[in-house]
Amino acid sequence: MFITFEGIDGSGKSTQIEKLRNRLEEKGALVDVYRDPGGPVVSEQIREILLNPDFEINSVTELLLFSAARSQLMAENVLPGLKEGKVVILDRFFDSTTAYQGYGRESVSLQEIHNLNTIASHKRKPDVTIYMKLSLTDAKQRMAKIKDRMELSGDEFFEKVIAGYNKLADREDRFFTVDATEPVSKVHKRIWKHIKKRYEY
Amino acid sequence: MFITFEGIDGSGKSTQIEKLRNRLEEKGALVDVYRDPGGPVVSEQIREILLNPDFEINSVTELLLFSAARSQLMAENVLPGLKEGKVVILDRFFDSTTAYQGYGRESVSLQEIHNLNTIASHKRKPDVTIYMKLSLTDAKQRMAKIKDRMELSGDEFFEKVIAGYNKLADREDRFFTVDATEPVSKVHKRIWKHIKKRYEY
Repeated sequence: MFITFEGIDGSGKSTQIEKLRNRLEEKGALVDVYRDPGGPVVSEQIREILLNPDFEINSVTELLLFSAARSQLMAENVLPGLKEGKVVILDRFFDSTTAYQGYGRESVSLQEIHNLNTIASHKRKPDVTIYMKLSLTDAKQRMAKIKDRMELSGDEFFEKVIAGYNKLADREDRFFTVDATEPVSKVHKRIWKHIKKRYEY
Repeated sequence: MFITFEGIDGSGKSTQIEKLRNRLEEKGALVDVYRDPGGPVVSEQIREILLNPDFEINSVTELLLFSAARSQLMAENVLPGLKEGKVVILDRFFDSTTAYQGYGRESVSLQEIHNLNTIASHKRKPDVTIYMKLSLTDAKQRMAKIKDRMELSGDEFFEKVIAGYNKLADREDRFFTVDATEPVSKVHKRIWKHIKKRYEY
């Protein structure tokens, strides 16, 4: 079972991932959690390049680096884990690329991003994608830190990212949307009900 | 004018690039030379990841990293240089990816490599690609160092790379093939005659 979490910063992905991991482990599942970009040494090194504020990384380069980090995470951790029967949960995956680089930055066409996502994921789609839906206004109210970062990129950018996520959620059957403004325990209950139903844990 | 040099290691690309650079500069051209992968800080950092012998880089990841390094080289150096009217010469470019990762490793389909090359090059093809054609037997006779490296990857791999280059040379009008076993000065003369004819320097 391959589960990914999506949504803008501040939507509570990390909290919900930990809760889901604990619940699955209680039920006896072996669970691996990774953040994308991240995981293997190679992917962490790529992450460092991506996050280095001294570099002015071209938007196409950025897209290719995210894809490279993802490919290594798939090859080294996700695909072997799934083969061993583990549940693999990722904090962000290729839908982030579609939402941020595709709908947000509009630097490369959506078709090209789709092609890249297919290559980078080694053609493996998530079984379930939990989308923590949150409006920009709600996100800003949550945390000053997030507010600063968002104001750096501009409201317009984030509105496009959120619109992109909403389009993906409409289009892709694997998406399960939850209202991220609801209390943590309620959100967890909804997620668990969905996962449980699908996989009969 | 955008010129790339292709061919297996030991074919004499670097020597011929220096000779062509000198000749062009004598004629008053502004010439920039870069190696791909390499150039900008970001691309050099990616190069270090690619060449680090401690990493087992998945072949798809490798392809994406080469593409990312190339994209940054194009965005930061090649495209601005061409815009300023410079001659930009690259030691290897996307044809290396087609020959080594596509024909050699066969890890990703040639169509996907073509798509990636288009993205990574920001849709700019070289005006002329000088192909230093050399057989595996001749390459091995040239240098013991190269021989060792080649035996590590196996003859079969390099034969496929060379066959790939030959197919590209047949197919792409921008290719100009020279016999790399000829003396350095003779090879340079052939290259210069071709460049001179095309660009009237």
